[in-house]
Amino acid sequence: MNAPRIVIYGVGAMGSLATRMILDKGGQIVGAIGRSPEKLGRDLGDVADLGFETGVVLDGDAARVLERTRPDVVVLAVASYMEDNHAHIRTCVEAGANVITLSEELLHSWTTSPEETAALDELARSNDVTITATGHQDGYWVSLVSAFMGTAHSIDEVRGRACWNVDDFGPELARDQQVGTTREQFEEWNATAQRPPTFGRPSLHALAAAAGLTVSVSKTETRPEFAQGQVSCQALQVTVEPGCVIGFTDVDTVETDQGVTLVLEMTGKVYAPGESDHNRWEISGEPDLTLVNDALPTHLTTCATLVNRIPDVISAGPGYRTIDQLPPLRHRAESLAT
Amino acid sequence: MNAPRIVIYGVGAMGSLATRMILDKGGQIVGAIGRSPEKLGRDLGDVADLGFETGVVLDGDAARVLERTRPDVVVLAVASYMEDNHAHIRTCVEAGANVITLSEELLHSWTTSPEETAALDELARSNDVTITATGHQDGYWVSLVSAFMGTAHSIDEVRGRACWNVDDFGPELARDQQVGTTREQFEEWNATAQRPPTFGRPSLHALAAAAGLTVSVSKTETRPEFAQGQVSCQALQVTVEPGCVIGFTDVDTVETDQGVTLVLEMTGKVYAPGESDHNRWEISGEPDLTLVNDALPTHLTTCATLVNRIPDVISAGPGYRTIDQLPPLRHRAESLAT
Repeated sequence: MNAPRIVIYGVGAMGSLATRMILDKGGQIVGAIGRSPEKLGRDLGDVADLGFETGVVLDGDAARVLERTRPDVVVLAVASYMEDNHAHIRTCVEAGANVITLSEELLHSWTTSPEETAALDELARSNDVTITATGHQDGYWVSLVSAFMGTAHSIDEVRGRACWNVDDFGPELARDQQVGTTREQFEEWNATAQRPPTFGRPSLHALAAAAGLTVSVSKTETRPEFAQGQVSCQALQVTVEPGCVIGFTDVDTVETDQGVTLVLEMTGKVYAPGESDHNRWEISGEPDLTLVNDALPTHLTTCATLVNRIPDVISAGPGYRTIDQLPPLRHRAESLAT
Repeated sequence: MNAPRIVIYGVGAMGSLATRMILDKGGQIVGAIGRSPEKLGRDLGDVADLGFETGVVLDGDAARVLERTRPDVVVLAVASYMEDNHAHIRTCVEAGANVITLSEELLHSWTTSPEETAALDELARSNDVTITATGHQDGYWVSLVSAFMGTAHSIDEVRGRACWNVDDFGPELARDQQVGTTREQFEEWNATAQRPPTFGRPSLHALAAAAGLTVSVSKTETRPEFAQGQVSCQALQVTVEPGCVIGFTDVDTVETDQGVTLVLEMTGKVYAPGESDHNRWEISGEPDLTLVNDALPTHLTTCATLVNRIPDVISAGPGYRTIDQLPPLRHRAESLAT
């Protein structure tokens, strides 16, 4: 029963929050790897706004930090997609460290990035360490939903609806979400846009795996969301007129050999007053069932879930292990000791 | 990969529904044990109202049925409490059959019936079979709630609220729930009533086990529920006047060594129009979180969960295995083959 030795790789909003939660539960943070020049050389407690110094200084040389600190696990929070994570993960694995990441694609990347996933799996096996991705989706789009499905006799369709507020993420993302465009502009963009994989697809593939289902077809469609009245977008400092675009919804659909269809509608839009992040799932089958989590503070559940998963990732066998291959997600009340 | 051979022990409402669901998923029902004289000698399909004959005839001699059929597992749906289940389970285990039961107390009976539980555990180990209890609580009070807790960083209290309609269960239970009594009559009854364990306590003990928490103190309090306007009780064919009792709520509280308090408020009352069974959980901690399942058809989720658990119970190691010792609850889309 030892407190795990942890390196934080990426000290942005998520890495900072995870740092505080890890320290709350007695984890030892032995190193911190940063990338922004303005953060390097500063104490982790300063960068993560903890209110105290940790004695750990942000270093930009990942291999050097890992060589010096020999952590049990690296908490990697730098990017969403495989292409932006691959090299970082390789560095950690080659240093003999387990990796737990918030990468949305890595939640289940076997179909979106098969070659890179197989290469990381092989590398992790030969270095006897585990690579796992977790976060909000682990709880609200996989673990809860799979248990929920376990209470149904027959299932035709499982449909999830999740929503996030464009105004929480700044002007770049607001423009990505086509806020303020017209219906025609949106349709023109949507017909030709080269977009990375949705976050819904890997989540539905992880859910299928957890539920014992075999995916046959995956597809994604995108529909615009329109302002009903005037909607104020803080991120862009504009008012969107009724009938114009306030964001869009990616609708991921997965068909399975067992005849169960999994759908996730993920909406990123500018919220009207009183709207909040939520998670709503419906089972159509025998019986029809609903599961609702309203007013979700997604940034907190993301990092809390990651921290609660640390002991599972340290204990897991080697390789790229998706969450369906870990023990059930559970709370860690006191410590992260394994 | 063989379809399990199953005996139904107790062919009431739940046993009948489980029978239909098992046949839907290709389970082989090889025997049926009944107790009511009016059911014995009749075909299981007739008693369970399946609309077809099964070729399996209800027999009142459990040992004889088990000796003749040698099932992989017995589905036992005869009673809620250990004292009314103990002998039936012993008969099954001594015949070498795994047992899956809907007994609410057996969901986690180590503290309410420690001697009987230890004896059954010992007997199951020496006969190399598993005894497990499941049902609605497995999904909605344990599996979902434990995963939900895994998305929180710190937890002061987890509070569940569940509700069932007295009118679904006939006049005897309506009288047990004190429907139609005055506040004074209720308080007099409540001060002296000799009641069996609540269903909440074993559920909270199972939840604590699933969440890695150690129970220090358990207590139960009971509060009356009063009619707001006039409420019509179909089961008793009476109208309850405003201010009189329409049922009561058992409030189970479990304190744990880790400082997390678990509470379950279970209300059995006469519903007003528009009310339905529900399941609502709140986490107080960082962050505060809510989980809601409304309009729950509890009889269906009870039996669906049992059927989905059959492969887990057949595969589990020997002994009395509570659900925290099984794999995560999940849907079985196609078959019960193990």
